[in-house]
Amino acid sequence: MAVKATVLIRPKEGILDPQGEAVENALPALGFSGVSHVHVGRLVELEIEDPSQLESMCEKLLANPLIEDYEVVTASA
Amino acid sequence: MAVKATVLIRPKEGILDPQGEAVENALPALGFSGVSHVHVGRLVELEIEDPSQLESMCEKLLANPLIEDYEVVTASA
Repeated sequence: MAVKATVLIRPKEGILDPQGEAVENALPALGFSGVSHVHVGRLVELEIEDPSQLESMCEKLLANPLIEDYEVVTASA
Repeated sequence: MAVKATVLIRPKEGILDPQGEAVENALPALGFSGVSHVHVGRLVELEIEDPSQLESMCEKLLANPLIEDYEVVTASA
């Protein structure tokens, strides 16, 4: 039976996050204030038969472990 | 006091998801099998003083409501 998994991928602490910076800089022009620490990452959702493969999939394809942290969340489908 | 918020942005059901497709097609070549329904979206994390602005921020900047669904999760910081 396949398991639903969600992978959250974030830029590592201290690594440049140009997307987050762009969002943070764009907000005041749109009338939004009081927003800080914006970080933009990726969300991967999938169904997998063998969830033990997830860690290795993240290392090899889904995330770039040099500059990104990932967090795997699974829930039975 | 600022509130931590997470916004999950996904391609809408039925909308082309080329990133998800690319991941799904790349997996067998890397030796992974039994993976399906891959969808790739975005993850935005931020701190905000007035969380009632989040909905409007998503509509105007963070997501493209024509082709993306978004889900806002808040937790006091």
